[in-house]
Amino acid sequence: MTSTSEIHFNGLNSSESPVRHSKPPAMLSTVVMNNGVNSPNLESFFHQAMEIILNEAVKKATDIREKVCEWRSPECLKELLDLELRDGGESESMILQRCRDAIKYSVKTTHPHFFNQLYAGMEPYSTVASFICEAVNTSVYTYEVAPVFTLVEDTLLRKMIEMVGWEEGGDGIFNPGGSLSNMYAVNLARYRYCPDIKKTGIFATKRLVILTSQEGHYSISKGAALLGIGTTNVYIVPSDKSGRMIPSALEEQIKTAKQEGAVPLMVNATAGTTVLGAFDPIEEIADICKKYNLWLHVDACWGGAALMSKKHKHLLRGIHRVNSVSWNLHKMLMAPLQCSAFLVRDKTSLLQHCHSAQATYLFQQDKCYDVSYDTGDKSIQCGRKPDAFKFWLMWKALGTAELGQRVDRSLVMASYLAQEIKKREGFQLLIEPEYANVCFWYIPPSLRNLSDGPELWKKLHTVAPLVKERMMKKGSLMVGYQTHRDKPNCFRMVVISPEVSNADLDFVLDEIDNLGKNL
Amino acid sequence: MTSTSEIHFNGLNSSESPVRHSKPPAMLSTVVMNNGVNSPNLESFFHQAMEIILNEAVKKATDIREKVCEWRSPECLKELLDLELRDGGESESMILQRCRDAIKYSVKTTHPHFFNQLYAGMEPYSTVASFICEAVNTSVYTYEVAPVFTLVEDTLLRKMIEMVGWEEGGDGIFNPGGSLSNMYAVNLARYRYCPDIKKTGIFATKRLVILTSQEGHYSISKGAALLGIGTTNVYIVPSDKSGRMIPSALEEQIKTAKQEGAVPLMVNATAGTTVLGAFDPIEEIADICKKYNLWLHVDACWGGAALMSKKHKHLLRGIHRVNSVSWNLHKMLMAPLQCSAFLVRDKTSLLQHCHSAQATYLFQQDKCYDVSYDTGDKSIQCGRKPDAFKFWLMWKALGTAELGQRVDRSLVMASYLAQEIKKREGFQLLIEPEYANVCFWYIPPSLRNLSDGPELWKKLHTVAPLVKERMMKKGSLMVGYQTHRDKPNCFRMVVISPEVSNADLDFVLDEIDNLGKNL
Repeated sequence: MTSTSEIHFNGLNSSESPVRHSKPPAMLSTVVMNNGVNSPNLESFFHQAMEIILNEAVKKATDIREKVCEWRSPECLKELLDLELRDGGESESMILQRCRDAIKYSVKTTHPHFFNQLYAGMEPYSTVASFICEAVNTSVYTYEVAPVFTLVEDTLLRKMIEMVGWEEGGDGIFNPGGSLSNMYAVNLARYRYCPDIKKTGIFATKRLVILTSQEGHYSISKGAALLGIGTTNVYIVPSDKSGRMIPSALEEQIKTAKQEGAVPLMVNATAGTTVLGAFDPIEEIADICKKYNLWLHVDACWGGAALMSKKHKHLLRGIHRVNSVSWNLHKMLMAPLQCSAFLVRDKTSLLQHCHSAQATYLFQQDKCYDVSYDTGDKSIQCGRKPDAFKFWLMWKALGTAELGQRVDRSLVMASYLAQEIKKREGFQLLIEPEYANVCFWYIPPSLRNLSDGPELWKKLHTVAPLVKERMMKKGSLMVGYQTHRDKPNCFRMVVISPEVSNADLDFVLDEIDNLGKNL
Repeated sequence: MTSTSEIHFNGLNSSESPVRHSKPPAMLSTVVMNNGVNSPNLESFFHQAMEIILNEAVKKATDIREKVCEWRSPECLKELLDLELRDGGESESMILQRCRDAIKYSVKTTHPHFFNQLYAGMEPYSTVASFICEAVNTSVYTYEVAPVFTLVEDTLLRKMIEMVGWEEGGDGIFNPGGSLSNMYAVNLARYRYCPDIKKTGIFATKRLVILTSQEGHYSISKGAALLGIGTTNVYIVPSDKSGRMIPSALEEQIKTAKQEGAVPLMVNATAGTTVLGAFDPIEEIADICKKYNLWLHVDACWGGAALMSKKHKHLLRGIHRVNSVSWNLHKMLMAPLQCSAFLVRDKTSLLQHCHSAQATYLFQQDKCYDVSYDTGDKSIQCGRKPDAFKFWLMWKALGTAELGQRVDRSLVMASYLAQEIKKREGFQLLIEPEYANVCFWYIPPSLRNLSDGPELWKKLHTVAPLVKERMMKKGSLMVGYQTHRDKPNCFRMVVISPEVSNADLDFVLDEIDNLGKNL
C-alpha cells in the first residue's frame, strides 16, 4: 500500500504524466487508495491480456483441431472457477489466469463445428470493431458523446432501409436484440392506432390483437405480455407444411377478432423462422393488411440477410410494402452479439413521438449543434451501445457483393448437407430446406426396422438429446435440437461461417452416426 | 480472386489447418468467394488492430495531455469519415485507418477531464473482460452455450443481493441498461398484483398507477408508456429542496389514486437521483408501501455503488425491505457500458413466471444437465450479452474493500469540489452535495453585479451552453449541464474515476472561468 499523500491512481499515465498535484490532498487524509496489489503496470497488463485473447479466444477457439467445448457440469465448473467475490483483490497473474480459464471453459461459438444457435463463427473485422466500442465506451444517445457512432448508425440504417426497398426512406434504431425490436413494432403499431395510449394507457381501449404464425418467434408473445396486451391476444395463424403462414387463415383470424369486438392491430410475418427457416408470403400478407388497415411487421431477424443476395432476396418479396422490419446482423451476417436493427417505414418521426420523454439533462435543446443528431430519445433505453459500428466496419471491409456471396454460400452449404442426408442411411430430413436451416433426424440402427408410428417416434425422441450429450461431453461438435409441432426431437443445422467447408458437414453427419449408432 | 475450387475462407487457420477437403466442392461451382482483398492475414490484422486500440483508445485517450474530444460538426465529420457503404470491400490498411479515425473522433470518455455523464474513466480489468466477452461471443440464455458466464452472473447477483441485505436471498438478471431494469420492476409489480394480466392484458383491469418522485428518472415514464399503463398514470410525488421524495406527499398521492378508483401498483424510490444525486428516504417509503401493500422498487442505478462503502451505505438505509432494485455497475463502479443488474426479493421464481415463454428450441427440458441453470427465460430478451463477467473480473482483481474505498474517494472529491466552488468568486452551488453530484452555476463577471431575479436568471441560463460549446470546441473538458426545476442551466459535475485528482478539479473550475469570463 502506498502513502496516502499519493492519491493519484497508479494507472496508465503514471510514469509519464506531467506534475499534476499542486496542492496536498488534505481532504483525502481518511481515504487510503490501495495502489499496491491492485495496480498493475497497465500497459503490460493490456499486452498480456490481449495476447491471451488472441491465442486462446481467436486462434485456438477457431482451430478445427481443438475442441468445441470443454464440458463440465455446473457443479464441477463452479469449483474450478473459484467464483466467490472477496474483500481482498488478486494479483495480476491470477487475473490473467482467470482470463485464460474463462475462455477455456467457454463454448467456442467461433469454432467451425459449432452449429448450436443462429450465430456462429468469427468475423475478424467486426470483432475488432467490437473491441473499439468497448475501449471507447460511450453511449449513442447524443452526438455530443458519440459523434462517430451516431453518424455510423444513421448511415447503416439508411443503407439497410435502401436494401429493404423503401424508396421514400424511413427511420430506425439499433436495439439489444431482435426480441426488443419486435416489441418496438407492437408499440409503434399501437401508437399509430391511437397516440393517446402513450398517455392514458390501454385500460379504456378495446381489446387489441396481434397476429403471428405458429412458427413465429416467441418474442411476440413476450412482447404482448410486457405491453399489457396479454399472450391470449396473440392470435396464432396456422402455417403450411413448409412453415409459411397461410394467408387465408390469417384473414380468418382477423375476421374472428373483429367479430369478437376486438381490434386487430398488427400482423407479424416472419422472414426465416427459427426452426425451419421458412419465409411467410409477405406480398399476400401485405394485401390482407392493406385491406384491413393493419400494421405489418416483418421479423427478419434471421432471414433479413437474404436481402444482401441478388439470388435470394426474392424470399422477402413484398418487404418494400411493410411498416417495419427487425433485422439482426449478428446472426447470418456474423457481427458479434448484439447487432440488431429495427427499421420503420415512416417519415413522420413516429419512433421519436412514440418513445420520447425529452429528458432535460440529456436532450437539451440549446446545444451548439443540430440536435436532430441526438437520436437517443427514439429508444426505450437510456444508455445504448454503439452496435452499428460493428457491422459498418465489416461492411466497409467486405463490401456488399461479398456479403451477398456469403449468404449464397451458406445456402449452397445447406443444400449440400440436405443432399448428403438424403444419401445416407439412418438420416432423414424433416423437410426440404428453403433457407439455411436443415432439420433432420438421426435414426440409430436399432430403430431402423421399426415402422413409422408412435413407438418409433417415442424412441426417436430420446436420440437427439443423447447424441447431443455425447457430442458436448466429447467436445467434438455442437448442434441444436428441438421438437417441431408433434414431431419427435430433431437436429437443426445452420451453416453460417465461411470457415465451414463441405468436409465439416460430412464430419457432422459422420460424428452423429459415430456417437449415436449404439443407441 | 481465388479459384472457386478453394472454397475455404482464407482465415486464421489457413496456413496451419490440416487437409480438410476430401471432396471437390462441386455444389459450390456457382459461388465465388472473394478471398483476395477481403482476406487479410488475420493474425497480423488482429495484432495491428490491438496495437491501435492500445495506443489510441487506451493510452492516448486516458492521457491528460491529450484532448477530451476532437470536435467536428456533424456535417464536417460525415465528410471526414467517408461513411458510405459500397459494393466493393477495402484494403486492410484502409480498415486499420478507419479504426484510428473512429477512435480519434470519438469523445474520450476515459479521459480524466470527461465529466459529461454518469460514467467516466477506464477500468482496465473490466475493459479486458469486455474484450473477452466480445471474442467469446455468446449469449447467456443457456448453460449449454455460456457455462462460465451463466455461473458468473449467478455469483455476482447473489453477492449483490447479499450487499442489499436480503437475508433470505432473491433473484435477478442483468439487463441492457437501467431503464429496462426499471421496466422489469413495473412488470413484476403488475404480475404480482394479478398474474392473469400476463395472459389477458390490462384491458379489463382497473387503472394502474405508478408513483415516483419529481426527481426520478424518465425511464419510469417510458416504461409506463410501453407497458400500456400510460404516462399520466405515473403520479409525480414532490421532492424536498434536497431532491428527496417527501413521504407524506407520497401517501397523499396514494390516497388520491385510491379515491379515484385506481390501483396504486408500485412506488419507485430513487437512490441517487440523476441531477442532484439525492437519496429518497427508503425506510419511510417502505413503511408507506407496507401499509398500502405496494411494490417498492428502488432505482439505485446511480446510487447503488454506495452499498460498497461501509461509510456511505447508510444513504440506502432500508433497502433490505424493498421488493426490487436496479443497480448499474457501469456508472460509479466503472464497468464498461452496459452492466446493469435487476434484483428482486423473491423466492417464488416470480421473474421466471412473469417473463417465461418456454421456447422449445432453446429451453429444452430433456437436457443432460440441471436446466435451472438455463436462466434466459427470466428475461424479456432472447439473446443477452454476458455483462456480469465485466464486473466479476474487476471485483476479483480489486476486492470489495477497494471498491468501497473508491466510492469513498469519489465522495471526498465531490466534497473538495464543492468547497472550492464556495471559495471562488463567480461560482455558486445549487445545493450542498449529498453524494457525488456537484451542481453549480458559473456567473461571469458581467453578471456578478446583477441582483437575484428574472433578469439574472435569463442571462445566466445562456452561460452554461456557451461555456460548454467552447470547452467542446477546444477539447479541454466535458461537463454536463441542465436546467433543474425552474432554475437556469447549471453544470453538473460527477467524479467517478480514481484517475481524477484534486488538481483536475481545480482545472475544471479554472477552465470554466477561462472559457466564460468574457460572456
